[in-house]
Amino acid sequence: MWLEEPAFKSYIFYSSILGIKILIMAILTARVRYRKKVFANEEDADKTKGIVKLDDPDVERVRRAHLNDLENIPAFWILGAFYLATGPPSEWATLLFRVYTASRIIHTIVYAVKPLPQPARGFAYDIPNFIMLYMGVKIISHFKNAL
Amino acid sequence: MWLEEPAFKSYIFYSSILGIKILIMAILTARVRYRKKVFANEEDADKTKGIVKLDDPDVERVRRAHLNDLENIPAFWILGAFYLATGPPSEWATLLFRVYTASRIIHTIVYAVKPLPQPARGFAYDIPNFIMLYMGVKIISHFKNAL
Amino acid sequence: MWLEEPAFKSYIFYSSILGIKILIMAILTARVRYRKKVFANEEDADKTKGIVKLDDPDVERVRRAHLNDLENIPAFWILGAFYLATGPPSEWATLLFRVYTASRIIHTIVYAVKPLPQPARGFAYDIPNFIMLYMGVKIISHFKNAL
Repeated sequence: MWLEEPAFKSYIFYSSILGIKILIMAILTARVRYRKKVFANEEDADKTKGIVKLDDPDVERVRRAHLNDLENIPAFWILGAFYLATGPPSEWATLLFRVYTASRIIHTIVYAVKPLPQPARGFAYDIPNFIMLYMGVKIISHFKNAL
Repeated sequence: MWLEEPAFKSYIFYSSILGIKILIMAILTARVRYRKKVFANEEDADKTKGIVKLDDPDVERVRRAHLNDLENIPAFWILGAFYLATGPPSEWATLLFRVYTASRIIHTIVYAVKPLPQPARGFAYDIPNFIMLYMGVKIISHFKNAL
Repeated sequence: MWLEEPAFKSYIFYSSILGIKILIMAILTARVRYRKKVFANEEDADKTKGIVKLDDPDVERVRRAHLNDLENIPAFWILGAFYLATGPPSEWATLLFRVYTASRIIHTIVYAVKPLPQPARGFAYDIPNFIMLYMGVKIISHFKNAL
């Protein structure tokens, strides 16, 4: 059964890690909001004696890292799943998923936890992006008769 | 066949409700934009004799609720699907999907339709978030050999 | 096997095109940022002798088109997959996926590549939105016993 294939298990495992990673971004944002007492909504500022402020640079940095995840990870979930449907070697697919996930976590660290000079974030962005484009090309050439 | 399993049908049903819910957020935003005649693009303002304004508080509130959906619901789609792959009791999984969906709808109502003081939105956010983290932990411990 | 069904292959093909399309939006944004030398982060401006500016109208236009994709395409991935589970005629499903994908590409062109007066973008938005709502209604009425 497909669920027994190592590459599928690996896909499920790393996709779920990435799902939890997205949820953690909201916790990171909340932590900065509470530390600096800046909120996006009146009712949140009321509760915490903070202020409403929509352009705090530290909050916005974490929010950009969060949005960057939303621009990338859902596409990975789709492209990763369909890449498996092209029948790649199991160990190669697992390696791609592993490197993708590690790079996206590093991306968040150098973007929003401990900002580093470029090209740190550039590399951590380009590697997973390249993996997705590679998988996309493989899928499209495999299923091109479906055009 | 897996499609006959009650928990899978429930997953499909509630995931689709959530998909439609996201589409409705765009309709809510448009309604506020037309009522207040504030738009994000020149060409939209031209058509409706409105103005371009990117910081209207009522529009931004609906947009934050919309973005909050994008930060949560795609992760639910993935974590919910893979949670089923861990073989949970069908009625328990169905209950989680149902509570998740209801809470996310309530979240939008108390955020953007009829804003309420905290902790209304806090509860409506934390319950589905906790469900996702719970499912995530279950998936990861089930598939941990795939690391 | 389901992977042999033409409608499934078509779903995989067009979903992957849309995944790559989302990745290309980031390249479009970067192109405008480098042309105008405006960046969101200090470390990016440093590297390129540009400036930090969060409200450049050309950059924001591409970013709105990108966000619009994130508000629509993940919902398509879910609704398209589950629509197939309702057993639609294969050619009809393929037509919907094809029109959806073409319209979303046109949407980006008239929004962010070569902005056109309304209702160009309105049509390119409404057609795929209507396709998703149609699929959503079909799924919900097919699986309504799962409520």
